[in-house]
Formats: sequence, C-alpha cells, structure tokens
Amino acid sequence: MTAMNHQFRLAARPAGMPKRSDWNYVEEAIREPGDNEVLVRTLYLSLDPAMRGWMNEGKSYIRPVQIGEVMRAGGVGEVIASKHPGLAPGDHVQGTLGVQQFATLEGKSLTKIDAKLAPLPVYLGTLGMPGLTAYFGLLDVGQAQPGQTVVVSAAAGAVGSVVGQIAKIKGCRAVGIAGGAAKCSYVVDELGFDAAIDYKSQDVKKELRQHCPQGIDVFFDNVGGDILDAALTQLARHARIVICGAISQYNSTTGVKGPANYLSLLVNRASMRGMVVFDYAERYPQAMREMAGWYADRKLKTREDVVGGLETFPDALLKLFSGENFGKLVLKVT
Amino acid sequence: MTAMNHQFRLAARPAGMPKRSDWNYVEEAIREPGDNEVLVRTLYLSLDPAMRGWMNEGKSYIRPVQIGEVMRAGGVGEVIASKHPGLAPGDHVQGTLGVQQFATLEGKSLTKIDAKLAPLPVYLGTLGMPGLTAYFGLLDVGQAQPGQTVVVSAAAGAVGSVVGQIAKIKGCRAVGIAGGAAKCSYVVDELGFDAAIDYKSQDVKKELRQHCPQGIDVFFDNVGGDILDAALTQLARHARIVICGAISQYNSTTGVKGPANYLSLLVNRASMRGMVVFDYAERYPQAMREMAGWYADRKLKTREDVVGGLETFPDALLKLFSGENFGKLVLKVT
Repeated sequence: MTAMNHQFRLAARPAGMPKRSDWNYVEEAIREPGDNEVLVRTLYLSLDPAMRGWMNEGKSYIRPVQIGEVMRAGGVGEVIASKHPGLAPGDHVQGTLGVQQFATLEGKSLTKIDAKLAPLPVYLGTLGMPGLTAYFGLLDVGQAQPGQTVVVSAAAGAVGSVVGQIAKIKGCRAVGIAGGAAKCSYVVDELGFDAAIDYKSQDVKKELRQHCPQGIDVFFDNVGGDILDAALTQLARHARIVICGAISQYNSTTGVKGPANYLSLLVNRASMRGMVVFDYAERYPQAMREMAGWYADRKLKTREDVVGGLETFPDALLKLFSGENFGKLVLKVT
Repeated sequence: MTAMNHQFRLAARPAGMPKRSDWNYVEEAIREPGDNEVLVRTLYLSLDPAMRGWMNEGKSYIRPVQIGEVMRAGGVGEVIASKHPGLAPGDHVQGTLGVQQFATLEGKSLTKIDAKLAPLPVYLGTLGMPGLTAYFGLLDVGQAQPGQTVVVSAAAGAVGSVVGQIAKIKGCRAVGIAGGAAKCSYVVDELGFDAAIDYKSQDVKKELRQHCPQGIDVFFDNVGGDILDAALTQLARHARIVICGAISQYNSTTGVKGPANYLSLLVNRASMRGMVVFDYAERYPQAMREMAGWYADRKLKTREDVVGGLETFPDALLKLFSGENFGKLVLKVT
C-alpha cells in the first residue's frame, strides 16, 4: 500500500482576505526521492504574512504560487529517505517544504538543524527566516548604531520581537508598537524593550514623540498604513526606514494606502529601503552562528504560537491578519 | 534724501496656492553695512518651488519665513558698498538676498561670481542651487552609474534639465517627464535626453515601460503624486529614488498623496531618499568647477525664463505651479 501525502494546493487567487475555498485539500502518493533528493516528513510549518503576497498574480520578489501548485511554506521536518550524500534518515532539516505532510526535494535546498540547541519551532522563528530578516534588516539595511533609537512595528511578532532584542544587544533604545496590553507588556517585561506603544488604545504619533525625544533613527516597518505615516512624523535626521512588510495592506481591496508623510524623508534627509531576506543567503551561516549564541545565552527570547494540524491551515493563516496570534505562528503538522 | 528699499514681506501663511495678499509690498530705508557686511543691489531673484514650503509654519529642513519678515529668495546682485575685506563695489555676488531691491548682509554669506563666464541669471539656475541640487542628487544620492537608466520628472525645469544632461555626460540613458510637446522636444532635441514623456497627453506608466525596458535605476523626483507612483511601477532591482521635491503636492489643501506603490521598494530592494542641497555646502566649490567646465564646453545648456520686475513677484511665482514657465524662472529686479 502506498502512503498518501495530504496537501493544500492553490485553487484561486483571493481578493482581499483569503478563504478556505482558495485552496484544495487533496492527497496524492508520496514520491520517492531521486538522485540527490530526500524525502522529508513535515513536522512544523511556518505561517507568515508574506504567504498572502505569494498568492497574488504578478511580478514580486518571488515567483507567485501557481494555481494547482502546492501552497508554498517554510517548514522543519525529519528526513525519511535520502539519496543526498549530506543527509541521512533521522536528520532534522529546515526548508521550503510546502503545505503538505511529505516533501520530496533536492537535498541542497535544505539546511540541517540541531534539535538539541533549540526546540524545532524556534527554527521557524527566531532561528529561522524571521530572525534572519530581523538581523539583516536592522543591522545591514537599518545600520543601527549604539545609542540610537530603533522603533519596530508588529513588535511582538516573529520578526519584530527579534528586531527589538537585537537592538538592545547592540546598545540601542528599542521601542515597540503592538496591538493590545498583553503584547505590549510582553515586549517590555519579557523581551526588554525600553517602551511599547499599543496602537489599539493609544495615539501612536503622540506616544512616539514621548518615547523618542531625539527622534527615530531606525524604523523597522512590518505593517505599513497609518503606523508608517505616524513614524514618518517623528524621524531623526538621516533616519533609515526598513520596509520589511505591510501586513495592514496585504488584504486591501481598495488599493494600498501610500505614506502621505513621505516628504519627511526630504526634511530629515532620511531614506526608506525595501529588503528581502533571501538576498542575504550567503551570510546566513554567520548570522545563524551569532543568533544561536545569543539564544544560548538567553539574550534572545522566543515565543511560539503552535496550532494544528495540517487540515486547519486556512483558518490558522488568517490569525495573522486579525492580529490574533501572539508569537511566531507555527502549524504543527503531525 | 535716503534711498528707499522696496520689499515683499510675508503677511499671511497661505492655504493652498499663495495669493498677492499673502505678502505686503513695503518700503524702508536702505541700511548701511556694518563691520564685515556689504550692501548689495539685487539684480535677479531666483523663483523656486521650495519657496512655497518656506511660507508654511512648522518644522522643515529650513526655518520658515516669519510673518513680517522679508520673503526669502536666492539672488544675484552687485556690491554697492562693502565693509568686508573680500568684496568690493562692482563685484557680482550670489546669495540669499530676499525679495527686495537692496540687501545688507554678512559678506561671508555671499559667493563671488564671474559675469564673464556666464550671464548672471545662469548663476541662479544651472550654475546655482538648482544645478548643484541636480549634481549631488544624481551623483551622490542617486549613485548613477554608466549604462544605467535615469528618469527625471519636471525634466525641462531648472533642476531636471541639469539632471538629464549630467546623466548623459556620465554615460547614462536619460528619460525626462515634462508637460507639453514644447518642453518634451526641448528636452530631447536641445538637451540631448534619449526620450521624453508628456504627462499631459501620454500614459506615463506605459511610456516608462517602453522607454525603460531594463527598468529605472535612478528616479529623480521633483513632482510627487501620480508621477512618482508611475515611476515606482517600473523600478529596476536596487533602484534609487531621489526625493528632491513634490511640486504637485505643495499647494494641496486636502493633504499630500502618498506613493501607493511604495511596496515596489520591497519587491525591487530599492530605496527612496530625501535630499537637501545645503548639506553639500562644503563640496560646492568642487562641483561648481566641474559644472562650469561642462558649461564652457557647451555640454550643459541652459534656458532661463526671465520676468520682471520686483513688483510682479507674486504673479511670477505662481507660474511655477501652473507649469507655465519654461526654463529656470528668474525675476529681473532692476
């Protein structure tokens, strides 16, 4: 009897918020690995805001998922069978496994991970793509320097939480913007940010003025919309805005809201730059070593929001856009 | 009998388009120069889009003009009396003279200019602040490299015309966006741009696709609004957008239109940076030498739109915002 592989395949391109019928939940036979390939059993899948963009047609920083194709997703899993010299059954790996129970793919596309250093879901968050995004975005694009003020939106999220903690490690002042009292106190009390602003109950512009008296040197933006506009009003001279995402805009059906205060870039001789973590692939190993060291030293704390299982994927993904999840959202597959 | 000095002093902060009653036209006695000061007779005044911003209250890159103060303006003039060792009667100078017939100010705030190298109005355009803005914006902020595609808005204007010509000197492809057939043919036929797009009669987005098949490497923006949004759709990877101005937005009473397509910065790993020419003051002499050389070699062509005299200042300034002027707008004072 052939083992079956359950999968979510893209069925339609959503307008606005995705819904369950935008995917088909199907099964097909597991494909045995060919030369240099491995068969991986998916253990955890990463649920990321960027996945919404991958469902859209048209030019972006990465090829859109095609109709009929397995929905793209990063994940961690266990090697079941291998025809790749560097990987053996029992190894844990991280890679683009897709929203499915099993993935058969090139061994070179996978990164071996150490399950003894950190629980597997951490490799989808702080020690995975979100952590690397925070690392390169803050240090490389944002050029954060000791003594400067770093503000990050979606501060309790997978990327934002790491941005603020690295800012502190590097001697910056860290201010987070998050939704709700629980996330705000987490950011300050657990993660060690200097301050947090609750965009749901506070006047973000006013709070930024209070918490960033010298202005914002680096604004790391994950949300766009009104929060980006508020940050623009409080820039320090030569500020850097890192455009990592715009979750407030991804499901808009009326068009994206552009930052009306962008002329603050002129007034403050500031810059706004987009970043995509994949561009730093050559430097992942160095960054991972440094991040793993901070993690081992308890300087980088993590929080995962693990939900399951595979069949709940569409509803689980939507938690991201309601601001409902708290910590890195991970789907437990088995 | 004391000679009198006619002046425009700010009377009110305009909402939207400025009107004549936003200034008072007054006269006062000429003030004799004190130690290290000179008395200058204003010959020509520069009319610039930035002047609109100086009339607004609030934080900007330069102190706002105060109510009752002489309206700020750059100009060229002739020294009448001097108590500054470096300047003598008869010298021609460039500086912030203000909208008035005579200015008494510190000698060190003035730059001596050579009326034999170029006609005086050229020192308010191509060999003045607009030219320097183009130079540093394109080469320093924009980092234009040989073989790359440079697009500039307000391409027939004082800054834009120099941007495109320097782009050509540096081996780039230069595409201009301007309003009307006359400006477009000037930009291509007289200034040597590779192409021009008439935003009044053409689909800017479509034309940019056609004229920039490899994408835009540097977009030098003077206008903002829909044209900035169109340029964002056609960026090359790692493109640089230089925010020099946003003339389409300066008189808006309904708020600035933010660039809705700003997420193209993310897709293309591109940046948008604001610039203010005053930050490059230390490097003016080097830039001026290079620009004067190009001007002498006829590689930099200029066009001035000289209007007069002083009392027509309010109406003359408005020509900038209607797109009516053609070439660097200069007010002849005497």
